Amino acid sequence: MPNEMNYIDYLRLNEILNAQFPESDRQGKSAHDEMLFIVIHQTYELWFKQLLYEVESVNVIMQKPALNDNSPELQTVVHRLSRCTTILKVLVHQIDIMETMTPMDFLDFRDMLRPASGFQSWQFKKLEAWLGLKYQHRHGQEYYISQLKQEQIDIIKKAESEKSLLELVNKWLERTPFFNEEMNWKNFQTTVNNRANSDTTQHIFWTEYRHRYFESLASEEKSNYDLFDEVFSDDSKNKNAERSLSPAACRAALFIMLYRGYPVLQLPFQVLTQLLEIDEQLSTWRYRHMNMVHRTIGKRIGTGGSSGRDYLKSALDKHYIFKEIAQLTSFLIERRRLPSLSREMGSRLGFAG
Amino acid sequence: MPNEMNYIDYLRLNEILNAQFPESDRQGKSAHDEMLFIVIHQTYELWFKQLLYEVESVNVIMQKPALNDNSPELQTVVHRLSRCTTILKVLVHQIDIMETMTPMDFLDFRDMLRPASGFQSWQFKKLEAWLGLKYQHRHGQEYYISQLKQEQIDIIKKAESEKSLLELVNKWLERTPFFNEEMNWKNFQTTVNNRANSDTTQHIFWTEYRHRYFESLASEEKSNYDLFDEVFSDDSKNKNAERSLSPAACRAALFIMLYRGYPVLQLPFQVLTQLLEIDEQLSTWRYRHMNMVHRTIGKRIGTGGSSGRDYLKSALDKHYIFKEIAQLTSFLIERRRLPSLSREMGSRLGFAG
Amino acid sequence: MPNEMNYIDYLRLNEILNAQFPESDRQGKSAHDEMLFIVIHQTYELWFKQLLYEVESVNVIMQKPALNDNSPELQTVVHRLSRCTTILKVLVHQIDIMETMTPMDFLDFRDMLRPASGFQSWQFKKLEAWLGLKYQHRHGQEYYISQLKQEQIDIIKKAESEKSLLELVNKWLERTPFFNEEMNWKNFQTTVNNRANSDTTQHIFWTEYRHRYFESLASEEKSNYDLFDEVFSDDSKNKNAERSLSPAACRAALFIMLYRGYPVLQLPFQVLTQLLEIDEQLSTWRYRHMNMVHRTIGKRIGTGGSSGRDYLKSALDKHYIFKEIAQLTSFLIERRRLPSLSREMGSRLGFAG
Amino acid sequence: MPNEMNYIDYLRLNEILNAQFPESDRQGKSAHDEMLFIVIHQTYELWFKQLLYEVESVNVIMQKPALNDNSPELQTVVHRLSRCTTILKVLVHQIDIMETMTPMDFLDFRDMLRPASGFQSWQFKKLEAWLGLKYQHRHGQEYYISQLKQEQIDIIKKAESEKSLLELVNKWLERTPFFNEEMNWKNFQTTVNNRANSDTTQHIFWTEYRHRYFESLASEEKSNYDLFDEVFSDDSKNKNAERSLSPAACRAALFIMLYRGYPVLQLPFQVLTQLLEIDEQLSTWRYRHMNMVHRTIGKRIGTGGSSGRDYLKSALDKHYIFKEIAQLTSFLIERRRLPSLSREMGSRLGFAG
Repeated sequence: MPNEMNYIDYLRLNEILNAQFPESDRQGKSAHDEMLFIVIHQTYELWFKQLLYEVESVNVIMQKPALNDNSPELQTVVHRLSRCTTILKVLVHQIDIMETMTPMDFLDFRDMLRPASGFQSWQFKKLEAWLGLKYQHRHGQEYYISQLKQEQIDIIKKAESEKSLLELVNKWLERTPFFNEEMNWKNFQTTVNNRANSDTTQHIFWTEYRHRYFESLASEEKSNYDLFDEVFSDDSKNKNAERSLSPAACRAALFIMLYRGYPVLQLPFQVLTQLLEIDEQLSTWRYRHMNMVHRTIGKRIGTGGSSGRDYLKSALDKHYIFKEIAQLTSFLIERRRLPSLSREMGSRLGFAG
Repeated sequence: MPNEMNYIDYLRLNEILNAQFPESDRQGKSAHDEMLFIVIHQTYELWFKQLLYEVESVNVIMQKPALNDNSPELQTVVHRLSRCTTILKVLVHQIDIMETMTPMDFLDFRDMLRPASGFQSWQFKKLEAWLGLKYQHRHGQEYYISQLKQEQIDIIKKAESEKSLLELVNKWLERTPFFNEEMNWKNFQTTVNNRANSDTTQHIFWTEYRHRYFESLASEEKSNYDLFDEVFSDDSKNKNAERSLSPAACRAALFIMLYRGYPVLQLPFQVLTQLLEIDEQLSTWRYRHMNMVHRTIGKRIGTGGSSGRDYLKSALDKHYIFKEIAQLTSFLIERRRLPSLSREMGSRLGFAG
Repeated sequence: MPNEMNYIDYLRLNEILNAQFPESDRQGKSAHDEMLFIVIHQTYELWFKQLLYEVESVNVIMQKPALNDNSPELQTVVHRLSRCTTILKVLVHQIDIMETMTPMDFLDFRDMLRPASGFQSWQFKKLEAWLGLKYQHRHGQEYYISQLKQEQIDIIKKAESEKSLLELVNKWLERTPFFNEEMNWKNFQTTVNNRANSDTTQHIFWTEYRHRYFESLASEEKSNYDLFDEVFSDDSKNKNAERSLSPAACRAALFIMLYRGYPVLQLPFQVLTQLLEIDEQLSTWRYRHMNMVHRTIGKRIGTGGSSGRDYLKSALDKHYIFKEIAQLTSFLIERRRLPSLSREMGSRLGFAG
Repeated sequence: MPNEMNYIDYLRLNEILNAQFPESDRQGKSAHDEMLFIVIHQTYELWFKQLLYEVESVNVIMQKPALNDNSPELQTVVHRLSRCTTILKVLVHQIDIMETMTPMDFLDFRDMLRPASGFQSWQFKKLEAWLGLKYQHRHGQEYYISQLKQEQIDIIKKAESEKSLLELVNKWLERTPFFNEEMNWKNFQTTVNNRANSDTTQHIFWTEYRHRYFESLASEEKSNYDLFDEVFSDDSKNKNAERSLSPAACRAALFIMLYRGYPVLQLPFQVLTQLLEIDEQLSTWRYRHMNMVHRTIGKRIGTGGSSGRDYLKSALDKHYIFKEIAQLTSFLIERRRLPSLSREMGSRLGFAG
């Protein structure tokens, strides 16, 4: 670093702006659009680095055994996740730039790139892993390994072995204290007449809520009965199945959605919302990317040897990371039918002032 | 109309701005967000009217038995299709506004709307029909009829019976004159040695192109051999199958993509590009709409009684309108391997000057 | 309303979709693009109606003599202001659609519209008034009155006479209780040695903060000294000048920005942020609108007789509504130099739990 | 380059992803948001490189003494300028990401960057110069030089000494051949009775057009009389004044706008449209950037010592590059009043076919 700060040195522009080496130039068959191809991928990777940086910082916060509600930590989590969404929206938009490259213009240098492939973007895979995509849920597992060098496989495997944001959110939700604090519930009013008949393993609130939810269902939706128990009951047969959020975590998340107006629940609600936003943007990105590949190479195979569009289409359906949170909306009921919380609980969820 | 033009009267703002009647108000259970729900749907329908207006005007032009290359008609077609794309991008963006309505806020009035449903938007169905979606390709045919009044079914049936943009594009492509003009081809240079062996029903250009295309394929792509003949050969077994573009039209479209640099082909290339843009935006709209429905109602059924997200997901895959044009990119070859056109053909495709 | 809810009746589509009457049709000189012109203005007015609806609901909440921190009201305010921003972003984007109308296409019907003009959009003026734009700050006051019918002038005058969001925010900020609660400050640590020398009318916190702010200024920024006192001191000579936020309100807003991490301040910080977002989007809308007008009519006069671009340019600079909030960023200091709040104050700003 | 193409090596990701060195880390006062600050500026600079690459390639084409209308060159120009617009739209959108950095978060590392400054982005200045911004039109000339190292000043000076796109467009427009080809005009019908009275130095078409334009003006617009002659007459007193487009070039540009429907004029019209699009996006970028700076630093001075917002605001108004093209819209008349071109001219502007 020179004596005086300077824009060019500070941003390492000499390195950044001299890192474009079109292969078509090297082979003496210069193709104009290859520069765009390189630059857009480099910007994508820079943004992936930034996304990883933000997600890592969020995971560090969420890893704490207990978040202090009075610290600004949850606010920081919301802010950084929201930044990730903002970045992802730009990444979706950037596809417009890629689409200015017509199929004929891509063909001018496409074969020179084989077998390099976007599937080798280890940063994107690491991002998916840190957010919560498990190896076993990945589409085309062997394929993705076959594309990568051992060094990068190791990076992704390591990321997959670490606590993902989804797992940390699960733990955080499970820690929600309100249900176990007896005082909050002693004045809770229920409408379920015969408590003896209710599921005794269930908390008084959930017995009541379950009852009200069932009453709210249209006759064609009666299958949601079983679904409710499957998702929320600790006795769920589905308990050991492939789920990322435990019944306890699902109950906490639903409670947050239902009573988001209470001060203590406001930021937690924003956390859940941001997770769904990230999933939606990732999903939109994958979708537009798939369409773009289809328009560019049609039914040709990808430079990395994949089946192109078909591969991407399958990944699209399988790679929703926070879908168990999204599906909780199935279990909401109208605000006017919501059980009222007791005055004690109201204070518990409020400010000190 | 008063003596003097006035913004408010001209735009009929008294009608437009007094056409919002929240059902929750009528039922005395006022739900704040219902106004948004009404307004956003009204703006969607206004834009659908505009899209229909533009597509109709395009179809009127395309219906002419012969477009005069020297008239501004094709330019008008490109301009208006491009406007449709611009409108569709805003419609995609508008989903952001809808997403500011949380599931709980929607629940406050959702049940009051039954059985009204967005499936009853006859304008959108008419738009799909005019662009080229056939009844038999529609997902959930009976369902969509069950939702509509006879009056609207008639409107859509009528639209389906009219020449769609896709059909008109097919006819326009089939009329491409260059291949039948002998003079253009007498000096065309070929590399296929034994012409006797080539498909005699094929034009000299396509025999040559087919040969070069086959040479360009990677070994894993050999299945594209058959695909090529299926798409482009008049003898194709697939001839009578469910296709919208005839082999002749496909040949013309591919020719336009390959030689888009010649003046006469520049606007035709823009026409094809705009059709793909429209399909992409429609597809992105359907995708984001599906995601939004999923986030809003989860696994609940739609207000119209549909299975919600699942219905939308199936429609997503089936409702690409111009996919036969998109798939032609599978058959491009590199610019440096393209057959050169003769000097006569060059003049034929150029300006008078 | 028929027995059964129906999409078309519910949305009054018969009225909405039959409210387009191109003047060029009536005059028998049909101009294709006039339909777009009508439809886009109608969608703008529909969205203005929605914006007014949201802002009105926010103002109703803010009008309460005291907002209960434990009610969800402030959350509702943030949510609805944020929705306004989302809508405004779409309105900015919609200019892309208008720009598909070339100057020549506009000329085909432009003269037929005289003297109607977008300046007659009373809804937009009402929106500006409700947000906080005063008549005396409006550019071209007589001009705007000359354009409107008495009926609309009355609507806007009435809106201007009501408490605007800016005024309500000022009152709400002034009510901030923390400074007057002695307990919060008895353990507050200061570095200003000689308290006797400090401005005795000032609160201990502000004396300390003023000191630290002055120390943080670069030598070229010394003029900010006076500015600080002008903005924050109750003795400010500028006291009676044209300002919308009182010194007390400015102090509260700055305090919120500085200590936004404390639970009680999180939503207030989001309120301030949303106000700036709205201003930014309104400003971007005005800017792009001005550019569009310039591209469309150049140096011709507007249909309403205005000087077109020049008028819009002047309004651009004068119509920032929340600029006094934006300018508070001039007075921030680095987080590591911030005075620490006492433990009592920490509790006061935190959750009950 | 290793034996086998690989995504990571091809994109030089080891260099690109290891070029972020937060100064706050180096000084041991780590500030989370500095990484974002670095990454976003690096992506901006990558895109500036791409924009320079596209504009350079366009200028190379435009530099040819004569463009062959039958070559695809003009199509390439339109395509690449359109790509620049698409890139610029993403750059405008990226400001959303920067705005996720709150003023307090920026303050955490802001002072460490002095005196580095975005004004040192020589690529952006080179881009402006290549497009057509002259040193003498630049706001704050000495200031910008004081910020840069000699090496970068030399780069920009060199760019300013080369033919800019604006100058090349001027030359290209001046070469328009149609007016000098007598045959095109011998059957041109005029309505100006006494030709003897018309400006003899003017071409028959422009004498006629000038007459029709004057007739189209509203009474308040009579000052446009003089403006017309000033812009289009070779005798213009304004001839030697500070203008970038000569009267002959302005006439050609207006003719293209008026008769854009003729085949030969379709691409030239798209060229002019793209130039205005680029200016609009650059202008929107400057505007949002100015607003962002204002929100972030208020009335503090920039890290490079500039007056921050005020500097940017002045540049905003002065740095329109293609404003002389934009202003031609002042001189359009309605399509139905346009002089008809002769049949000979019609052929001249059409296809050979």
